[in-house]
Amino acid sequence: MREVAEVIKSNDKFFLATHINPDGDAIGSAVALGLALRRMGKEVTVFDRDGVPGVCGFLPGSGMVTDVARAEDTSEATLILLDCNTPERAGLKDIAFDRSVVIDHHRTESSFGDVRWVDTGEPATGSMVYRLLLALGLDITPDIATNLYAAIAIDTGVFRYGNTTAEVLETAALLVRAGADPVDITERLYNSWSPDRYRLLSLTQASLSLHGPVAVSTVTLDMFSETGTTGEDTENFVNYPLVMDTVKVSVMLKEKEGGIWKVSLRSKGDIDISKVAVQYSGGGHRNASGCSLVGELEAVKQKLLDSINEIL
Amino acid sequence: MREVAEVIKSNDKFFLATHINPDGDAIGSAVALGLALRRMGKEVTVFDRDGVPGVCGFLPGSGMVTDVARAEDTSEATLILLDCNTPERAGLKDIAFDRSVVIDHHRTESSFGDVRWVDTGEPATGSMVYRLLLALGLDITPDIATNLYAAIAIDTGVFRYGNTTAEVLETAALLVRAGADPVDITERLYNSWSPDRYRLLSLTQASLSLHGPVAVSTVTLDMFSETGTTGEDTENFVNYPLVMDTVKVSVMLKEKEGGIWKVSLRSKGDIDISKVAVQYSGGGHRNASGCSLVGELEAVKQKLLDSINEIL
Repeated sequence: MREVAEVIKSNDKFFLATHINPDGDAIGSAVALGLALRRMGKEVTVFDRDGVPGVCGFLPGSGMVTDVARAEDTSEATLILLDCNTPERAGLKDIAFDRSVVIDHHRTESSFGDVRWVDTGEPATGSMVYRLLLALGLDITPDIATNLYAAIAIDTGVFRYGNTTAEVLETAALLVRAGADPVDITERLYNSWSPDRYRLLSLTQASLSLHGPVAVSTVTLDMFSETGTTGEDTENFVNYPLVMDTVKVSVMLKEKEGGIWKVSLRSKGDIDISKVAVQYSGGGHRNASGCSLVGELEAVKQKLLDSINEIL
Repeated sequence: MREVAEVIKSNDKFFLATHINPDGDAIGSAVALGLALRRMGKEVTVFDRDGVPGVCGFLPGSGMVTDVARAEDTSEATLILLDCNTPERAGLKDIAFDRSVVIDHHRTESSFGDVRWVDTGEPATGSMVYRLLLALGLDITPDIATNLYAAIAIDTGVFRYGNTTAEVLETAALLVRAGADPVDITERLYNSWSPDRYRLLSLTQASLSLHGPVAVSTVTLDMFSETGTTGEDTENFVNYPLVMDTVKVSVMLKEKEGGIWKVSLRSKGDIDISKVAVQYSGGGHRNASGCSLVGELEAVKQKLLDSINEIL
């Protein structure tokens, strides 16, 4: 972390980028760092190729996120990748930066980055940014606190996932003291469903099948059109079947145009489901990964069940 | 609180009782206090008329809870009511105690209790017991911490409800430092569903109807028998429709034998849904109340919708 702080202190122009298809930790940590760097008088661009998802639109400062990497913003800038660790994952390629920094808590296979701060023991990139800002001696404003609280809430499932520790609860308490409103933030992150989305959940739950310890649910293009929803509306659906004590792995197949199935994988405890994702050129964490497959639904399902059974 | 601490210090025999149909805050706070008093060398009985619900069976020390109020345990004992404030609510009547203490965070209309510590600003009775144990200078053992963390988790919806504050996050962090395992506790409280219960949820969600800002769902005796579940399995179902931004009040009607409907009421923000519960001789908190009605489903539903519309 000290090296990252040094790079920030000794440079003036930054290009912050986070991963495609961003979640609350990606946006929250990038916007928080963007706000803090601007308060230091730095020139800052915050980039996400896919922009800010609707559910994160309430985050103060999220309006600074751009989905365009303009040459005038990248040239002579220091790249800081947040919540990911390769330019590809951020949808950036063939862009030269003066230097590059990685701040991430995901597993990584690459060695990209002049300065790398990757800590898979951290629950969220948001908690890493919090520590970085403290190390830099910066104020945690209410807006920064709100972004970081949201980032941590999302990545810990509001203090339920396996990465919940005393430290992260302490950090959360300090962010509330700094002005984050925990009730408003979780309300906006989790209770902003449309009735259409709720109907989509009902249909998804009705599609559930149990195969021993593996739960499989499916969201088809028909279900999206019947309910007037989109892929973004399935956020978190894959976690629901994990409430069953008999379920150790939850799989959700989401249909895309062209016979493509976007697969979300979740597991409990020591089961490293990223091993399955990697087999199909995907990736992620031990308990939360994803990949894509092409083919008929039943064949794709069987392929995944076979791969999962091999690691159970 | 100081008065409660004095009563504890100056007496030797205690009868701890909590409310009928207990939840995690009732059992967790009563067992935690029971464990602590025993460590002080006191004679302690922990009573709940309905015993320990299955989901709380993992709480260390919950085996001390009895559903029988024996004369030898109540005679010359000090009654401590936890998470409720009348003997009736604890299913106790016509029993004389040497003195009585109330520790509760619910609204109350009665003045029962020689010493009353009622604080509706507290998120849980568990957080009150935590403060009490600190005031008494007692150790928070891992077992006590586990019970108190579970109590607080249940009553804050794991730090999502309107009662989530910096203080409660700090308390949670301290309980983890004292030995509570936040991941194991929430896993056991929330992820111990049977597949049957999951099917009951699907059926309940399919029963949902929206009436402007009011969501109504129904669980019938037929649904229980179809899925092989019981009333206990509907715990928390009423909260699900609150994820919709358009929904301000969620009502769940649960059928009992004899045309009785047990009604759970939830509301968001400033809507005081206990006003509706009180009209039907029920009670509870501003955002979480309950009552019972007798009659045909459609008539009962309409009655409730009318009462709710009056307070909206």
